[in-house]
Parts: sequence; C-alpha cells; structure tokens
Amino acid sequence: MAITHATGYAITDPKKYLDFELKKYELEPLEDDRITVAVEVCGVCGSDHHTISGGWGPFATKFVVTGHEVIGKVVEVGPKVTEFKVGQRVGVGAQVGCCGKCKACKGPNENYCVQPVHGYNTHWYDGAEHQGGYSTHVRAQERFVFPIPDSLESTDAASMLCAGITVFSPLLRNGAGPGKKIGVVGLGGLGHYAVLFGTALGADVTVFSRSDAKKEDALKMGAKDFIATTDGFAKGKELEFDAIIVTASSSSLPVNELLSLLDIEKKLVFVGMPEEGLSNITSQALSGNGACLTSSHLGNRQEVLKMLALAAEKKIKPWVTVLPMKEAAKAIKAVENNTVRYRSVLVQDIEA
Amino acid sequence: MAITHATGYAITDPKKYLDFELKKYELEPLEDDRITVAVEVCGVCGSDHHTISGGWGPFATKFVVTGHEVIGKVVEVGPKVTEFKVGQRVGVGAQVGCCGKCKACKGPNENYCVQPVHGYNTHWYDGAEHQGGYSTHVRAQERFVFPIPDSLESTDAASMLCAGITVFSPLLRNGAGPGKKIGVVGLGGLGHYAVLFGTALGADVTVFSRSDAKKEDALKMGAKDFIATTDGFAKGKELEFDAIIVTASSSSLPVNELLSLLDIEKKLVFVGMPEEGLSNITSQALSGNGACLTSSHLGNRQEVLKMLALAAEKKIKPWVTVLPMKEAAKAIKAVENNTVRYRSVLVQDIEA
Repeated sequence: MAITHATGYAITDPKKYLDFELKKYELEPLEDDRITVAVEVCGVCGSDHHTISGGWGPFATKFVVTGHEVIGKVVEVGPKVTEFKVGQRVGVGAQVGCCGKCKACKGPNENYCVQPVHGYNTHWYDGAEHQGGYSTHVRAQERFVFPIPDSLESTDAASMLCAGITVFSPLLRNGAGPGKKIGVVGLGGLGHYAVLFGTALGADVTVFSRSDAKKEDALKMGAKDFIATTDGFAKGKELEFDAIIVTASSSSLPVNELLSLLDIEKKLVFVGMPEEGLSNITSQALSGNGACLTSSHLGNRQEVLKMLALAAEKKIKPWVTVLPMKEAAKAIKAVENNTVRYRSVLVQDIEA
Repeated sequence: MAITHATGYAITDPKKYLDFELKKYELEPLEDDRITVAVEVCGVCGSDHHTISGGWGPFATKFVVTGHEVIGKVVEVGPKVTEFKVGQRVGVGAQVGCCGKCKACKGPNENYCVQPVHGYNTHWYDGAEHQGGYSTHVRAQERFVFPIPDSLESTDAASMLCAGITVFSPLLRNGAGPGKKIGVVGLGGLGHYAVLFGTALGADVTVFSRSDAKKEDALKMGAKDFIATTDGFAKGKELEFDAIIVTASSSSLPVNELLSLLDIEKKLVFVGMPEEGLSNITSQALSGNGACLTSSHLGNRQEVLKMLALAAEKKIKPWVTVLPMKEAAKAIKAVENNTVRYRSVLVQDIEA
C-alpha cells in the first residue's frame, strides 16, 4: 500500500526548540524520480540546532522535523528510478532535490543548483512541504540517494552524508593528498571528519583550535600537528598551507592570520556557518598572498560515492555517540553546549 | 658623479595632506641589483591619497613622497644589473623590491613576496628609507624595472604600472578572453583599465556602478553592458560571470548579490582597498555557488611585460589628465572628490 504519511519528532516554536513532539504529517508526492526511505538512523547536525532555535531565521513550514543524515531502507521507488530497489540500504543527506535545469545541475555540480531542495523546513517546486529524518520516512530524488557499502555500519555512515561530505568535497577540490598540507580550524563534528578524511587522502593535517583541550583527540584521529590559536600563532608560517578548512561556526575567528598561512591563491574554506556573518575581513589580508575566502556546499554525487568507498576501503571509523531518537533534545543540547565528541546519531524508535 | 639625493614633493603631516613641500633627501644605497631612474612622469594613485591622509595608518617615515607609477630614464645601474642601460626609458611601479628568498620570490610570484618593499613610506631591508615618484629620482631592484615599448607615450604608460597591472593580473589569472564574461565594479582609474584590458583580451565586460552616470564612458571604453546596482539588480543573473573585479574602494558594496552572479567556484577579486575593511559577508552567500572572495597584489614581471606589449599592440589609450607635478594637491583633491576621468599623471617640473 502506498505510503502517504510520516511520523516525526517535530518542533513548532523556535522559542521551545527542545520540546520535540511526535507529529504525523503528509509526505510530499512520490513522483517519478523520487524514492521513499524508511529511516533507521539519523545523525544530528549543527544545522538542526541553528534551524529549530531560529538562528537562521523563522520557520518556513508549520513545524520542523530536522534530520538530514539518514540511513534507511528503500520502501518505494518512483516509476523512473533506475538505480535502486525496494529493500536496499541507502543514505540521504542534506539536499534531496535539484531543479535539473540550471548550469550547475547540467554540469556535475547539482550541489550548487540555483534552487536546491534541502533536507527539512522547506518546500518542493510544487509547494509541498518537506521534512527530515528525525522521523519514520523521508523522500528524495534518486540523484540524492546513495547506496551504502556493506562494510559500513549505519551508525557510522549516517553523519558522513552531511558532516562528512561537507569537508570531503573541499578536501578533494583543493587537492588534499600526499605532499599537501591542510589546515583544519575547529575540532567538532565537521572538523573531526576533516582530520579523518584528510589523513585518509594522504595529506598532512594540522588542527587549529582555541586551546590545547582537544590536542590528544586530534592526534589520535591522525593529525600531524596541533596549533592553539593564541597571539602570534601564525608568525613564521606564511605560505605553508595548501588549503584551510574552517569548521568552527564562529564569527570571531582570527581570519586575517589564518589567511596569511596559505600559499599563493589558495583557499580558506568556511564550512561553519556563523549566524552573525563574517566581519573584520580586510582586502589587505587577502592581497598579501592572493588568498581566497570561500565556502562550499555539500558535494556532488560522484564525491559522495568516492567518500563512501574511501571510508569502506580505509575502514574509517567516525567518533559517534549513539542515542535512541526520542533523546533528540539531549543530542541538540550537546551541540549547543559543544560537548559532542564528535557526532550524535539517533536510532529509530517511533512505532510504525 | 654618483647620485646621492633626490628632491620631491613631500607631505609631513597627515592632517595637512594637501600641503606638498619640496624636500631634498638622501636616496637609499644604489646596491648591486638596483637601478636609479630619473623621473619624467608619475601617475597619481588612490593609494597616494589613502597614505598621505593617514587612512591606512600613521606614516612609517619622517615624511612621505608618494608616487608609484613612474616613467623615466635610467641614470645609474648597479654592477649586477644585466638588462638595462643608462639612457633607456623604463617604468617603475608600486613594488620596488622583494626578499628573493621566500617561496613566492622563488616561484614566479615576487608580487606576493612575504616582505616586499613598496613604492614609498617604507624601508629597505637595511633600514634605509624609500620614497616615491613625485620627485626627481627613485631607485628599484632590476626585477621591478620595466622596459617601455617605443610606441607607448610616457603619460599613457605611467599609470599602467600600478592601476593597469592591478587589474591586468587578475584578468589574466581568471581567464579573461574570448567567450568569458567579466564584471567590473566601479569605474575609476582601476575600473577603466579593467574595461580597456578586459576588452583587449577578448572578454565580454559588464560594468557595475551605483548609478547610470558613467554608462556612456563605459560603453566608449568597450564595455558590452552596464548595470546600475539598484535593488534586485542580481536577480536572474545567477552563475553568469567568470570573474568580477571590484575596483570600488568602498565597504558598503552589495557583496552578497555580486557573489551570486559568479559561476561555480569563480572569484570576486577586490582590488579596491576600503579603509574600513569588508563586512556583512555571510558564508551562506559564499556557499551558494562556492564563490571566492579574494584580492590580488599587482602582478608578476611576466604579466607586466605582457600588459605593456598588449597595450602597444592594441594601441590602448588610457583616459588621463596631464598636470605639472607642482599641481599634485589638485590631483589628490580630484581623487578624494572622485572627479578624475580616469587617472591623473604628473609631469616633472622640479629643477635639478
């Protein structure tokens, strides 16, 4: 029988962003190219906290069911789906749809579609609401559904679909590999993946953090070096780095000093999304070495598949805390308090 | 007889930045790789105004003689100079020295030397003061002295050495050429060169400006299109541009909208240097298309030579106002009032 509804842990008021409440709601139409996935596990992302607490603005839908790091089973496929079968284990990340018509979609850059559909708190092109994976079911276009290699555990693979690809794509696009020196600013969910994947790709990874508190963890993850960003930390290290991935979601970073560490015309890639925007950027700091300040949005399909294959091949084990889905508030609180080490993953517990 | 001193139009107090006064001062040592140039003409740059008015900070030298767009004659060469002879017409721009030892200098990127010596208000590695071209003489390392093609007039070539190369290098490095779409924000000294050179390289150039006031000039210079940056100007133009060169020296530009015009991972290159720094940059705006915010510093030697050759070949005629050097204050005032159309050039009038 066709699936028409999902049940999920919803937030209705950004002022009460820890008050998750089970709600049943209509799913968007299945459509030709869409797949319905029964959620088994779902990772908890900083975006979930930014969204439900209103930090990124008011809700776009009646209520919000967050979650965009889903692993589950295919339970329905639209008639034009070619790659997937009912029963198959798959992943769905933070983008579930693209227009298919713009320059980005026609190239291999659907992650830069000019009208993307994201994982929750959003609408499809026909106006139907779309919600996320703290729930029983999600739907996504086939292009945004990924087969999961057998050797990866679901609780390990889940957070790769957003946190993982968010750092893996800029690592790849900035040439992370043997002989390259990559900086990672901040060691949280994203940062820990940047160390794991950067190292797996063969690069020398240096972690920058405000204090030495996470030094031991960083080195265990594979970092070659750890630098606390105290006064003068950048001195004498000019032009040393091939890329720096900023995973800290803060607007008070020492951006100008970090820029000076980059080799000529290399990039400082912001993947943290501070709510206040960036400031104190001087064009003088950018002109000293022609360094680029940029950001990145997830990764394309080829990059996601490459990441999952690398994780399976190198047996990459993310550092995750596993909780039942009903403890979503506890996981969100841990994001807010910065106590996650280094990603929480929720396991399905909603009765069908 | 060896030349030991220069005479120049100097500013002693940033509060009195229009009170140019003739001063005689000791030149830095000639040294093995340096060339002494007798100044014939010198362009007037926005940097001159920023520096003497204290906008970029207090003076680094007792007084400041600005000017870093010099055309003149070689009058002395150090013993290790190989390429130049006394009597030859040459140009000297906004950088006169590099350390020769860093990664940038060893590559073809001496313009990104970690310890560059600039055109004035600065010191050499041995501590000697260096001043600029509103004067009788300047000295520079051979690497920063350029032969001028015979067909270029000195008053045309002068401002190419800073304003010209500042836009020519990012145009080249961002692939300006046939089939490429380049944006130029602001039509002043730098912007007018970006239109002239971008067009000469074969690119389609669009000028962005606050109002339509300079539309006619932009089209005369070769721009294909002109867009006033009023509300909503960026709508429907997403991903259209291969690079945008920002020549306006303002911190209140519509940066996020301009970023949205860029194709995936392309660059917004700030060559204007607003005194207040950039603000209101959201990483969301950068992540939409992976666009890069960057700057650029002059160009390398090969690029300067290529620019001068192109200018000679395509008979590029900058729009310049020629004044005697004693009218430096008038030229600076025109920079401040934004009335230059589009660059002032001072002709030598100091009695030897």
